[in-house]
Amino acid sequence: MKLIISGSEAKARTGSLETSRGTIHTPAFMPVGTQGTVKAMSPRELQEIEAEIILCNTYHLYLRPGSEIIHRLGGLHEFIHWDRPILTDSGGFQVFSLSSLRKIREDGVEFRSHIDGSLHFLGPQKAMEVQGMLGSDIAMAFDECTPYPAEHEYAARSLELTTKWARQCKEYLEAQEDKTRGLTSLFGIVQGGMYKELRKRSLEELAEIGFDGYAVGGLSVGEPKEEMYGIIEYLAPLLPADMPRYLMGIGDLGDMLVAVENGFDMFDCVMPTRNARNGTLFTSAGRISIKRTEFKDDAAPLDQDCDCYTCRNFSRAYLRHLFMAKEILAMRLNTIHNLRFYLNFFRKMREAIAAKTFGQFKAHWGGIFGQDI
Amino acid sequence: MKLIISGSEAKARTGSLETSRGTIHTPAFMPVGTQGTVKAMSPRELQEIEAEIILCNTYHLYLRPGSEIIHRLGGLHEFIHWDRPILTDSGGFQVFSLSSLRKIREDGVEFRSHIDGSLHFLGPQKAMEVQGMLGSDIAMAFDECTPYPAEHEYAARSLELTTKWARQCKEYLEAQEDKTRGLTSLFGIVQGGMYKELRKRSLEELAEIGFDGYAVGGLSVGEPKEEMYGIIEYLAPLLPADMPRYLMGIGDLGDMLVAVENGFDMFDCVMPTRNARNGTLFTSAGRISIKRTEFKDDAAPLDQDCDCYTCRNFSRAYLRHLFMAKEILAMRLNTIHNLRFYLNFFRKMREAIAAKTFGQFKAHWGGIFGQDI
Repeated sequence: MKLIISGSEAKARTGSLETSRGTIHTPAFMPVGTQGTVKAMSPRELQEIEAEIILCNTYHLYLRPGSEIIHRLGGLHEFIHWDRPILTDSGGFQVFSLSSLRKIREDGVEFRSHIDGSLHFLGPQKAMEVQGMLGSDIAMAFDECTPYPAEHEYAARSLELTTKWARQCKEYLEAQEDKTRGLTSLFGIVQGGMYKELRKRSLEELAEIGFDGYAVGGLSVGEPKEEMYGIIEYLAPLLPADMPRYLMGIGDLGDMLVAVENGFDMFDCVMPTRNARNGTLFTSAGRISIKRTEFKDDAAPLDQDCDCYTCRNFSRAYLRHLFMAKEILAMRLNTIHNLRFYLNFFRKMREAIAAKTFGQFKAHWGGIFGQDI
Repeated sequence: MKLIISGSEAKARTGSLETSRGTIHTPAFMPVGTQGTVKAMSPRELQEIEAEIILCNTYHLYLRPGSEIIHRLGGLHEFIHWDRPILTDSGGFQVFSLSSLRKIREDGVEFRSHIDGSLHFLGPQKAMEVQGMLGSDIAMAFDECTPYPAEHEYAARSLELTTKWARQCKEYLEAQEDKTRGLTSLFGIVQGGMYKELRKRSLEELAEIGFDGYAVGGLSVGEPKEEMYGIIEYLAPLLPADMPRYLMGIGDLGDMLVAVENGFDMFDCVMPTRNARNGTLFTSAGRISIKRTEFKDDAAPLDQDCDCYTCRNFSRAYLRHLFMAKEILAMRLNTIHNLRFYLNFFRKMREAIAAKTFGQFKAHWGGIFGQDI
């Protein structure tokens, strides 16, 4: 998987990734479909808002309905009726954040399901096997997401394990090509906590193994923004320039502007979808809470500048009514808008980089969504 | 509003009602959009499944967001983005079933909102005014839905009040045409409990006042099926033949077959939508519960004979997964299917009556959805 860079401005770049299921234009935002559905959306609506790739969670799908079942039914794309690319995470993050009674071993993690307490095991080999059964277009190596704060010693040991597991993922992919049932690309995940020299070591070790793309994990885990931006700025130029750079789990618009400015290409986050369900909506004038009384009889669309189904057809007053009445359509219309807003934001960002006006773009939108740090 | 009858078989008839917002083919099923949205559906999806009319609840919309607000925003059609006909009930049923601290007066009912306990009043005049502000295509007269069981004396007094209120609704409509802001038709509601002579009296009094259609209320309120069918069979032939006959709140497919056989034309019920959200789905082989283990890896569509978005694109296994995982898309796909199933059922029923094969139609579907009584 090669990133074709078609434009750049300082460190920011725009380009495209070709996959057998379609082109992904970068910088790209991936809506999150945790359990095999982007919450409140139908696949048809995802196409309509022009999502080019979605992310699904290996941990969740492995536990329910089970990767074997999905495989027997023709793979994840067929199962969820989505024929564009899917990136799957490795399950590592959820094993550490959601499950109980984790036991870290050298070959992976034993854990109990957060759904029914049943005992399971995920490690590099198993994570690859499961992602292969799902038929992922971009698989992620199994890692330990270093928590924050972490002592240097802990972060170093954790990173060592992550490197070892990443190597095993790569070996598994190469050795057992038939068993992976169509896995075509694998990204490594840079860890190392907030220690720059550990981040550098992690990256160098991964680059030596060789992956199709490089992700940065373990950010936005509770650290101050300064520290996060510090790692982003430090790491980005060290990542291989001709390969996609994926900043995992960061979805704040201001943060993504900083990351794109530094040369990151791919992002995922539940922020637009989760906020939509809570009534927090993104507009060209900033964030608004749709439940505010002032919208009670506001006939205007949510965002005059937006071309989504919600903004083309419904008033703020109706959206407020649906939200106050706890109607499912509230979550639907809000989600369509927030995701379309994000995808339009990324499209405009790509155009700005190509036109070498990203500096102005960032100044404008950073003023609306950014943080003073 | 005149019912143009285009075909019949014994007492069953098929035809059409012309409204300024489109034609309603009868027998017609009206999906229920209680709070200004058919739960889990978008207006676009309602058009796609070919709903020709929906029902909205005056009580709910009067309390939230308020009929004044909806009126200021251009009326209910504009507010909810639905340009086909809307029938509004009068609010009477909900005042009696949902609100607390009801005080029945000769001119209406004082009650407290089930949402915030605030004090309100609805009566014949107010119900007409509210429906006028909503811009309803078919308004219903304000009635008291006689509970079950009811003593003869209670039912008689209640019916007397209903008749009086119906007359006031009609007078209001005629006298204050400007204030009703586009109300074009008004249906009367036959009450009288389970007493046939009271039902007959109610109907005769309403017919004397003169309405655009006649509804039968106060059925399926807890009485045995035999009693309900008895009233349906007794009343149907007494209702004016050239006007729409609307059986309120009855949505069981077996019950509707009996009612259509006896000459009813219009129906509404939350059954298909509520059942959808609970995972009970209607198929050409009968009702199924999507959560059953047998569907875990069932690659087949929900109903091979159905042409809805759900059945064309998703497997039972995926629907079961979405339901077990409590995903919003489960409620969406289930609702699309159940409503399309109902509307297709009605289309086929109309075709059968036109082709004089309704007898076979009823025998076939009654065997699947009917009850032995």
